[in-house]
Amino acid sequence: MSRIYSRVALIGLGLIAGSMALAMRRGGLVGEIVGTAKSAETREAAAARGLCDRIVATPEEAVTGADLVVLAVPVGVMGEIAEAIGPYLAPGATLTDVGSVKRSVMEAVAPHVPDGVHFVPGHPLAGTERSGPDAGFAELFDNRYCLLIDDAAEAEPLARLTRLWEGMGARVEVMDADHHDRVLAVTSHTPHLIAYTMVGVADDLSRVTDSEVIRYSAAGFRDFTRIAASDPTMWRDVFLNNRDATLEILGRFTEELFALQRAIRKGDGDHLHDYFTRTRAIRRGIIEAGQDTNAADFGRGSGKA
Amino acid sequence: MSRIYSRVALIGLGLIAGSMALAMRRGGLVGEIVGTAKSAETREAAAARGLCDRIVATPEEAVTGADLVVLAVPVGVMGEIAEAIGPYLAPGATLTDVGSVKRSVMEAVAPHVPDGVHFVPGHPLAGTERSGPDAGFAELFDNRYCLLIDDAAEAEPLARLTRLWEGMGARVEVMDADHHDRVLAVTSHTPHLIAYTMVGVADDLSRVTDSEVIRYSAAGFRDFTRIAASDPTMWRDVFLNNRDATLEILGRFTEELFALQRAIRKGDGDHLHDYFTRTRAIRRGIIEAGQDTNAADFGRGSGKA
Repeated sequence: MSRIYSRVALIGLGLIAGSMALAMRRGGLVGEIVGTAKSAETREAAAARGLCDRIVATPEEAVTGADLVVLAVPVGVMGEIAEAIGPYLAPGATLTDVGSVKRSVMEAVAPHVPDGVHFVPGHPLAGTERSGPDAGFAELFDNRYCLLIDDAAEAEPLARLTRLWEGMGARVEVMDADHHDRVLAVTSHTPHLIAYTMVGVADDLSRVTDSEVIRYSAAGFRDFTRIAASDPTMWRDVFLNNRDATLEILGRFTEELFALQRAIRKGDGDHLHDYFTRTRAIRRGIIEAGQDTNAADFGRGSGKA
Repeated sequence: MSRIYSRVALIGLGLIAGSMALAMRRGGLVGEIVGTAKSAETREAAAARGLCDRIVATPEEAVTGADLVVLAVPVGVMGEIAEAIGPYLAPGATLTDVGSVKRSVMEAVAPHVPDGVHFVPGHPLAGTERSGPDAGFAELFDNRYCLLIDDAAEAEPLARLTRLWEGMGARVEVMDADHHDRVLAVTSHTPHLIAYTMVGVADDLSRVTDSEVIRYSAAGFRDFTRIAASDPTMWRDVFLNNRDATLEILGRFTEELFALQRAIRKGDGDHLHDYFTRTRAIRRGIIEAGQDTNAADFGRGSGKA
């Protein structure tokens, strides 16, 4: 594949940026990769792993001469970074981001994008519970969706960025920012908040039960602990920046939970059985869509397919 | 290892009973294994797989002459099966079960246990989202906990059943029924109800969003769909039979969820960040205790360790 960008600047060197660097290399998609991160420790770890061609100390240095700039930092700091790099962005360059929320990122970033620079917000739906420069791997985006936002994007920069993501293994879909934020509130933000809550409750109780909660976690609870081990700063920013959509889905969740709670209290077995039967179908849909493994128990441990 | 029981009767031939048959064989722990299940289809599938030495049509036939009888059926039908088999249980035999709730099972089963038969309730904390006679595998219990209940159990039958479970790979712990039901409400029952609820909410929404919920599930939601694909009848019975403990934990869960919801509404980032930091530790504890894989993303798909 021919080179899609000649110089890519990665601002932030965590799981997503590191995986992008490795996936871009795997596909021979870009020329030079320049990276930067706020902490010297992260920059050193990324350098030790050889994630980028060059690691520099500041975002301003990183973006100079780049034709693609990727903001891969927590959603809450995208605006200030955009403000800092705005004057250094090259005319004709594309600016994108990988934040989990799109409306607030656009509002924070867009005012700092100079004329002639193309801002195409994005969000790869991929990740693990790991974070930092050692967490990335080239296959992270394979067969995962990457959503690009077309509210204000021009056709050519959008098409070019699409080719990059497809070259990194992703399936690209285009939508507007508000739709993105509503859908992600269901598929990502609310599930994370609920997992964090369940783990917090169990953690409180485990302090009085001599860690039985940990020993007996394989009965279901342990599944929740994986996503509740995700990066706290990233997730704080997600909830603060997708407040309305998350609160709306939480409202629906609470309503359904109360209905099931009432069925338990009243001994309404039919309500419970019908509900639990309906939810089986959606897992089959996810497996058929290639979005999860079909192996029992995620294929972990000794579980056989 | 010498044989611990000479004839084992498995009542029910689903994931747990099937895995027990395979694990007992693997360890050479027992003599003959006799199995039965309510549906002819299940009995035929178990026979085709060779799970047991003999498959018979009724529980009464299965238990005749057995020195270990295992009730591996949904919690809600254990009482009626105990009533049916009571007169056929051999003097000196041990009767156990594998139900996820213990107090109500004991209340339902104990009245039908004749003098001279030892009732030792049990609960292996192991499983996958699969069910039925084709779902079992010999390694299911390896390194998992099996809880045995000592409220009324005598020492010798308890020790003997402990040896069987240890021979099948499990770690055995002994506790009373009420403690079991409280702990499992945290580590298993409430997490399952919450997962079912989240999947139900997403399923409602997916009907209006052209299955985006399925396509974008890798952003977190898909984790919930695994346990929400578990057997509906089993789980209906669990909630109906561990009502009080589940409702208590649900109350705590709702309280915490409302506090986080309020923090989102008020923009209290510190509350969120503190909460999300605390929950990371419990996952580390689970991994250190050998109760989950340390591989990123459960090791599924392309996630690297």
